[in-house]
Order: sequence, then structure tokens, then C-alpha cells
Amino acid sequence: MLIVQKFGGSSVANTEKVMRVAGIIADTYCEGNDVVVVLSAQGDTTDELLEKAAAINPNPSKRELDVLLSTGEQISVALMGMALEKMGLPVVSLTGWQVQMSTNFDYGNARIRSVSTERIRQELDKRRIVVVTGFQGVNGTGDITTLGRGGSDTSAVAIAAALHADKCQIFTDVEGVFTADPRKVAGARKLDEITYDEMMELASLGAQVLHNRSVEMAKRYGVDLEVLSSYERKPGTKVKEVVKNVEQMKISGIAKDNNVARIAVVGVPDEPGIAFKLFRTLANSKINVDIILQSIDRNGTNDISFTVSESDYEKAMELVAERKDSIGFKDLYGDKNVAKVSIVGAGMLTSSGVAATMFEALSDAKINIQMISTSEIKVSVLIDKGNADKAVQVIHNKFFN
Amino acid sequence: MLIVQKFGGSSVANTEKVMRVAGIIADTYCEGNDVVVVLSAQGDTTDELLEKAAAINPNPSKRELDVLLSTGEQISVALMGMALEKMGLPVVSLTGWQVQMSTNFDYGNARIRSVSTERIRQELDKRRIVVVTGFQGVNGTGDITTLGRGGSDTSAVAIAAALHADKCQIFTDVEGVFTADPRKVAGARKLDEITYDEMMELASLGAQVLHNRSVEMAKRYGVDLEVLSSYERKPGTKVKEVVKNVEQMKISGIAKDNNVARIAVVGVPDEPGIAFKLFRTLANSKINVDIILQSIDRNGTNDISFTVSESDYEKAMELVAERKDSIGFKDLYGDKNVAKVSIVGAGMLTSSGVAATMFEALSDAKINIQMISTSEIKVSVLIDKGNADKAVQVIHNKFFN
Repeated sequence: MLIVQKFGGSSVANTEKVMRVAGIIADTYCEGNDVVVVLSAQGDTTDELLEKAAAINPNPSKRELDVLLSTGEQISVALMGMALEKMGLPVVSLTGWQVQMSTNFDYGNARIRSVSTERIRQELDKRRIVVVTGFQGVNGTGDITTLGRGGSDTSAVAIAAALHADKCQIFTDVEGVFTADPRKVAGARKLDEITYDEMMELASLGAQVLHNRSVEMAKRYGVDLEVLSSYERKPGTKVKEVVKNVEQMKISGIAKDNNVARIAVVGVPDEPGIAFKLFRTLANSKINVDIILQSIDRNGTNDISFTVSESDYEKAMELVAERKDSIGFKDLYGDKNVAKVSIVGAGMLTSSGVAATMFEALSDAKINIQMISTSEIKVSVLIDKGNADKAVQVIHNKFFN
Repeated sequence: MLIVQKFGGSSVANTEKVMRVAGIIADTYCEGNDVVVVLSAQGDTTDELLEKAAAINPNPSKRELDVLLSTGEQISVALMGMALEKMGLPVVSLTGWQVQMSTNFDYGNARIRSVSTERIRQELDKRRIVVVTGFQGVNGTGDITTLGRGGSDTSAVAIAAALHADKCQIFTDVEGVFTADPRKVAGARKLDEITYDEMMELASLGAQVLHNRSVEMAKRYGVDLEVLSSYERKPGTKVKEVVKNVEQMKISGIAKDNNVARIAVVGVPDEPGIAFKLFRTLANSKINVDIILQSIDRNGTNDISFTVSESDYEKAMELVAERKDSIGFKDLYGDKNVAKVSIVGAGMLTSSGVAATMFEALSDAKINIQMISTSEIKVSVLIDKGNADKAVQVIHNKFFN
């Protein structure tokens, strides 16, 4: 089998961890597999480099920042190469430009265009372990780019897709994808399998396991993903297109997102184009709006409520307030003391009453629902922040006990 | 003018030093010059990376070591790019592979084959300052190589040669090339000019200012070199083919080398091929032999004395001892308590009595000479290590007072 294995920064943070990860790679290789390894920068390397940069120039160009930051993964792959050499294994490390990980010109947040498999194939044909830098690529003028958040996961999936790898394993701090955060929710259990769509919903709802970009790409190219622990040698969670026994579990997981704030625009004239004006204003400032709720009040005006991420809250309030006259609303309310709790499951498609079961759990616990948003495989509710952990627990109890 | 400026690791060791060097570059650029900057890794970066490697694998492959070490200069050029951006100057940093600094496959000690000027020219045409990584290149398979000792100087000269630069300035910790080490020899004075040949002799005799490889290359391509201080803005020493007023000074400098040991092979049969056998043995183990002296003693056998670097001493003694039977010598003596003191000067070619003046100075100071070696522009003597500093001072007094 051809297996791509990706290890994050905390998994290779120091000598001991590098050696442990080398052990995992060595075992995979010695079972007869072809192995391509994708690594992030070690632990705090990126932060240290950013500090160095900030001391010299608090506002460097993104191009030069990428030249700087890309050294982090290069250090990781060289050290991993040395660790595998010490075990007597044939290995070669390669950088983003060496594997021609071609990206667009968006320094700091580049998108992958293509990956050349030529060099990697040559090395695999020599039965070498190939260790590739994650997070980085090279653009059309031959300049170094970095991929932004979740970049190394995305590199791994892109390489797996290009090589038609049999699987792509993402090693992390956790054992896999759980029905809820196991540190906080009693009875949270690891999922053996989850669909791409469910994983994406969970990821965008606050589960930190995999970044959406990588799952999207895995779905597009049909890459079999597996999320598993760098520390414990046991099966993790498989992420794939179709999951067996999906009927037995109505939902796959529960996610909580505290990074959310609610804004209510009250007394908006009921005219066409008003909502457009409002949300265009926010979009122009790159503020993403999540749940939107519009209601008609008794005076023939509308109330529009929506949520933004907590970090965008102040800016969003300011922007909307500035448009008071042009939009013509009466009042503006904001609330940062809210949280979004969501259930996700492909089972919802074929199973009725899933949302009702969630609302029942919250009602039994006397937790008030402020807003509701649903998609084909997800139900999200906005509730008081203070109730969020309790809400996740009671919903979990309802579905999984 | 097109000027290549090279700054060593200690010149860019921290934020403050990076900003100072940026100031020098900015001034050169703002005078209307095109500027290409070549940088080494910051201060202790290389040592830190070597430590990281050693903790994982005390014997990594040179290939992986080069992948690791080359990150050092990449960090330097990115930070310098940011420093110049902060001054509002247009700048672009480039790595060894981006400027296609092509080398052979000798990882850790690679030789430069060619430098592509295309990318650098493009950037200069946009009136950008171009900051290039020293010390590193890329070989025929697209793998990263490093150039070994003096590599960044050599990178700078190679780039200056390829671009037909008007001059190549090597900025260092010292103000230029001195007649002797100014920290140790009273009256040591800075030279305004020195020939390539003299500089090479001084460099190989222990003067740490410029590495021989870079001077050799400068001579071959006629690159006008200047050695000058990163700290004080004043003229340094120009290194060129022909120097004016050479007649006024019989010698250009005095160098001392403590890293030397003497080995005497006594009672060697006077047969053809014996010396060959001896020195082939050492050459096979990559031990360089410097001064060689052969004398015929009264019994028809030879004594062969030679010097090696102190670090090769133990190994050389061992290798010669192993060949006792095949070479057929009687005794083997070794002495690490020696130093080599040399005078260098193109003036020797046309001026007689230079060596005699040197010997007179040593004789006056009652310093015994163990071995003598001469070339067209150099006289070296081997003396007791304890007398070395005194010898340099008395010779300097004799020639320069």
C-alpha cells in the first residue's frame, strides 16, 4: 500500500517526539508499505520566527514572511530524515518547491494548484521513505508561499490525491473524532467512521481535529482519510464518502462554538434590498455571517438577527451602526454572551425527529433556545454561553445513552 | 554601479545588528547603486541547528544536514528583507535554488558550477535590492547543497562574477586586512591594498579575514574585492590583481598558525618510492601535509619531517606507525608544541634579502627555527609554539618600523 502520514507540530515538537513519530513511520514502512510523510514545523518554531520578524518589522510583506516561516517545516523534515537514517532506513526529505507543490500567489494563505508526483515517485521507486514539508508551496514566479491555517493537512491530502495513495493518515493529539469533546462531555465516544460532510460540519462548528480545507479536498478527490493519535497505537476515525451502519446512530457528533456573538437589528423597514445592504456591508469587510433570522414585527417592520464570530463582533456592530440612516433601522442590540451548539449526522437525512429530540433535551434542562439553524445534516442552536457545556452534555445523554 | 555586499553571521546576529546592516545597504542603494546582498546564517543559528541534529542522530547524512543548515541563511535573508521593507525600500529575498546557484553533488562542501543571473537581473531592473542566501546552492537533481567553510564569501564572489558587478564588498568584524593580527601585534597596520596572491597566502597561513576559495574565484574572474568593517564606516582593504607602490613595502603581512604539528620519520631507507608510500598513505585519509623536509643522515638513510594540522596529528601518527614495516623506518617522533609563522608579500619577487631579514629578526630574539618553507611570495618557519607571538612581533618590528 501507498500511505501518506501527516504529523502536526506538537507531534514533532522535540527530539523525543521526533523519535517516537519515526517509530510509527518505520513500522509502516517495514510492513512493506510505501510511505510519504508530511510534517508541520516543530512546536513553537513558527511563533519564534514570528517574534524575530516582529522585532524587526511589525508589518513585513507576506512574501518575506513566507520565506521566513517556510524554514520551520524544512527543519522538521531534515530532522525526521536524520531520525529515520539513524534507524537504518532509506529516506529523503523534500521541500515544497522540490515536490513542485504549485500554488496561487496569495502569500500566507495560498491555494494549491497542483502537485508534481515525479520526484516523489522516483524516490518511492527506490524504496525510500519520502518526508515532505507541509504548509508550503511555490507560486508561478518560483517564490515560496505558505498555505495558511490547516495547511499541512491540506498538503498531505493533496499529495495523497496526486499519488492516488491508498490512504492518508492524519496523526494528531487526539485518538480520533469524538461524538463530543471527551475532555468535557461524560460518555463521549470515538467514532470509527464519519462521512466527509459530517466531518466538515463538525470542523466548521468548532471541532479542532481536521481543517475543512483538507476534508473538502479529500472529498473532492476521494482520498480515504484517517484521523488518529501520534501517542497511542490504535485505530482512529476513518473519514470517507459513505459510512456503514449509519442508521444505528442518528447523529455523529455534537459541537460547541463559544466564538460567536449575536447582533439584532430591530425595526428595519420592510423594503426590498435592505437585507442585501446590511450583509453586503459586512461582506465587504470580510466578516462572515452565520445564522440569520428574520422576523416581521407587528408594525410592518422587520427584525433581523444574525451571528458573527466573537472576534468580528465589535467591528460588525460599528459597521452596522454607521449604516443606521441608510438602512433605516430603529435599534441595534448585540450579545457576546452566547454559544452555538450543533448536532451533526448524515443519519438526519433519513431519520425524522432528530431536531425534536435535541430540543427536548434542552427543554428538559430548561435551556432557552435563542436561534435555530438547520441544514441537511446539521441542527445548530444559539443559547446562553453559560449553558453551553450543560447543553452539550444533556444532548449527548439523550442521543448516546 | 552594481555592488555585491556580503555580511557574515556575526554582522546579522540579532535585531540591532540586522538594522545596522540594513542601514549600510540602504545608503549604498540610495546613492543610486544597484545592490545585491549576500548573507550568512545569523550568529549561532548554525550551531543551534547542529545541536538539534546531534540530539537525534550524531551521524546524519550530509544531504539531510544540508537541508537543515540551509534554513539558517533563509531566515537571515527574510529578516533582512523585512528590515529593508521597514525603511520603505523595495526588496526581494532569494534562496540558493531561486538564483540557481548550481553546484556539484558534494554535500557539505559543494563547489559552485554556475549562477543564473536571470532572476537577479529581473529584480534589479525593477530597482529592487536583492538579498540572496550565501553558503547554499542546488545540485543537478534539485537537492540543496551547502558550500562548506567560507561558503558565503564564495557565494558573493560567484554572484559578483556572474553579474559582472563593479565591486564585491565583504563586510566583517575587522576593518580590513592587517600586516599582522592587530589584537596581538603592536604596530600592526591596515593595508589599503593587497594582491589576490598575497591574500591567498595570508588566508591559508591563518589570517581569518577571507577564505581562500573566494579569493581564488575573485582572481580567476577578476572581481574587485574589498574587505571592510560592518561596524565602522571607513574604507577597508582592496584585494586586486596588481597593487600600486608594492616596492615600498617588501611584505604585506605576517601570519601565525598554531594549528600545526610536526612529525619526523627517522631512518627511512634511501630507496625510490618510499616518500610516495608515506604521503600516499596520508593523502588517502585526506590528511593534508604542509612543509616537508628531507635530509640524508650519515648512514645512508633519510629523515623525513613534515607538518600536518594539529587536528590531524593523532591520526597521522597512527597511520605512519602502522606502516612501519612496509616503509621500513627506524623511529617516529611527533611534536604538537610548534607554530608556523609566515611572511607574505608580492614584493619578495623583486626584492632580495627578505627571508634573511626575517631570520635575522628571529635570531636577534634567540628564537630557534625548526623548519623553513618558501614560495615566490611567502616564507614560513616552524618554531616553538611558546615563541610564536614574540616571533610575529619581532618580525613585524623589523619590517614595519
